[in-house]
Amino acid sequence: MKESGERVFSGIQPTGIPHLGNYLGAIESWVKLQEEYDTVIYSIVDLHSITVPQDPTVLQQSILDMTAVLLACGINPEKIVPEHTQLSWILTCLVRLPRLQHLHQWKAKAAKQKHDGTVGLLTYPVLQAADILCYKSTHVPVGEDQVQHMELVQDLARSFNQKYGEFFPLPKSILTSMKKVKSLRDPSAKMSKSDPDKLATVRITDSPEEIVQKFRKAVTDFTSEVTYEPESRAGVSNMVAIHAAVSGLSVEEAVRSSAGMDTARYKLLVADAVIEKFAPIKREIEKLKMDKDHLRKVLLVGSAKAKDLASPVFEEVKKLVGIL
Amino acid sequence: MKESGERVFSGIQPTGIPHLGNYLGAIESWVKLQEEYDTVIYSIVDLHSITVPQDPTVLQQSILDMTAVLLACGINPEKIVPEHTQLSWILTCLVRLPRLQHLHQWKAKAAKQKHDGTVGLLTYPVLQAADILCYKSTHVPVGEDQVQHMELVQDLARSFNQKYGEFFPLPKSILTSMKKVKSLRDPSAKMSKSDPDKLATVRITDSPEEIVQKFRKAVTDFTSEVTYEPESRAGVSNMVAIHAAVSGLSVEEAVRSSAGMDTARYKLLVADAVIEKFAPIKREIEKLKMDKDHLRKVLLVGSAKAKDLASPVFEEVKKLVGIL
Repeated sequence: MKESGERVFSGIQPTGIPHLGNYLGAIESWVKLQEEYDTVIYSIVDLHSITVPQDPTVLQQSILDMTAVLLACGINPEKIVPEHTQLSWILTCLVRLPRLQHLHQWKAKAAKQKHDGTVGLLTYPVLQAADILCYKSTHVPVGEDQVQHMELVQDLARSFNQKYGEFFPLPKSILTSMKKVKSLRDPSAKMSKSDPDKLATVRITDSPEEIVQKFRKAVTDFTSEVTYEPESRAGVSNMVAIHAAVSGLSVEEAVRSSAGMDTARYKLLVADAVIEKFAPIKREIEKLKMDKDHLRKVLLVGSAKAKDLASPVFEEVKKLVGIL
Repeated sequence: MKESGERVFSGIQPTGIPHLGNYLGAIESWVKLQEEYDTVIYSIVDLHSITVPQDPTVLQQSILDMTAVLLACGINPEKIVPEHTQLSWILTCLVRLPRLQHLHQWKAKAAKQKHDGTVGLLTYPVLQAADILCYKSTHVPVGEDQVQHMELVQDLARSFNQKYGEFFPLPKSILTSMKKVKSLRDPSAKMSKSDPDKLATVRITDSPEEIVQKFRKAVTDFTSEVTYEPESRAGVSNMVAIHAAVSGLSVEEAVRSSAGMDTARYKLLVADAVIEKFAPIKREIEKLKMDKDHLRKVLLVGSAKAKDLASPVFEEVKKLVGIL
């Protein structure tokens, strides 16, 4: 256990079933951080997901699905509590427009939409900062794509402290040894929820047949030997990396275990390892999804705990800002 | 009483003691609306005031002062409840940046600041819309300077209804017969809290001596007769309008009552009428300000009532949006 007073916050959007890359890159490290830190808060950030269009019925189902997934992976999630938006408003009054307009994600996401993005899409990094700061979080596990947003979080904490007195710790990024899982169809790209090629992405809830099919069709190269050379042989190296990660082997051990196999047969071995890894989680997800009331209760209990942490922080914030 | 289902919302920023213009233009009409409508919600919008720099200690005191002023005027105020910022986030996801950037007030206020305004200053009309909509308000008393913001409120309500199903009524403006009180030093300008010329503005809490002095120095013209000709004789007509409003006289009656007086003497008569109007309110404010705990309790009780109205609305909103 790290010294108490340290708090880890991380949020996950409810949209879409997590895939192998999410699992190995984020969820597994969340489980680890639970053991290493005194206080961890994992939030299903439903308010973030509406910065892009969502179907309400699907969204509601997705929140429960994500709850089931996280529980099955060994994590107790909560949902955003009102303190997040309250603090978000205060932080919004500390930031100027160009600071948000220059963030890469806004530029990229806004460009993807037919019209301009909404103001919610522009200001969501401020809500993200409020998510983190309303627990006085000290540590945030992040991927490299979030480094710029973490700088904003620190800037906002600094601005608040300068204006209202030293209060928020400047949260540190935990750059977890994020295993970068690549698309099965294009090993130069990250595995992604939104990949239009359905074969590119392995979801936690895929059936064994689907997983076998996806690995069978995984793009490798014309050399049949299994080696780990990420630069020159991205496809087969992605297989090795996945194999190592799901089996708890080192990369060397994974390569060694492929002795005598060509890549075609090795892919099936990796598929089996993935199936084995996901099988108990998948069973648990299916069980949990049967009982929606239980899932709702888990969220409620989680949010009550989160509120207990956020309320005293926000009470202090109100005093410092001079609102009642 | 108007048919039930109608709800009036109005907000007032806590900064600065209300002046004669605020009293005659807004507060008096609030009192009237309390009698005319079934449900009225008057909120001290503390979260709005931090869109421009505020000293926390002064702000906290101002909120209590404003509570005392409103109570003394016969109004039970509340404070913003968390539903406002929650709904504000959802509405922020329905509006695009240029829509906010084209609002007059943003342009004017942002231009006044040395740097660009904050994002809070830009998005505060959305919070204002949430203030109104989170009670499903149907009517909002507004001055002419708020007409553009009311259009935004209606647009946001319409966007929400289009996206998530018919839910919010489109709130109507009540263009109250706002008496336009002019600056005592420049009758071509509105009386304003922030006028650098202290003699321009009569505050509810001014002493009788201050009020007499301000009216004595009020700018009129070189004709000594008292007449009501707002176009050609703005200064003395402002005196007549104030006199009529605080005494409950018609403009004609006010002019008639000045028979045999020159403007110098008439100004003192108007000052006396204002002093008489404010005297009981001022006494009540002073009494109320002695008991800060009572003022805090009034806000708490008001906010609890407001929460009772806003909670069921926001629960519905969550269902419609698909968040839990």
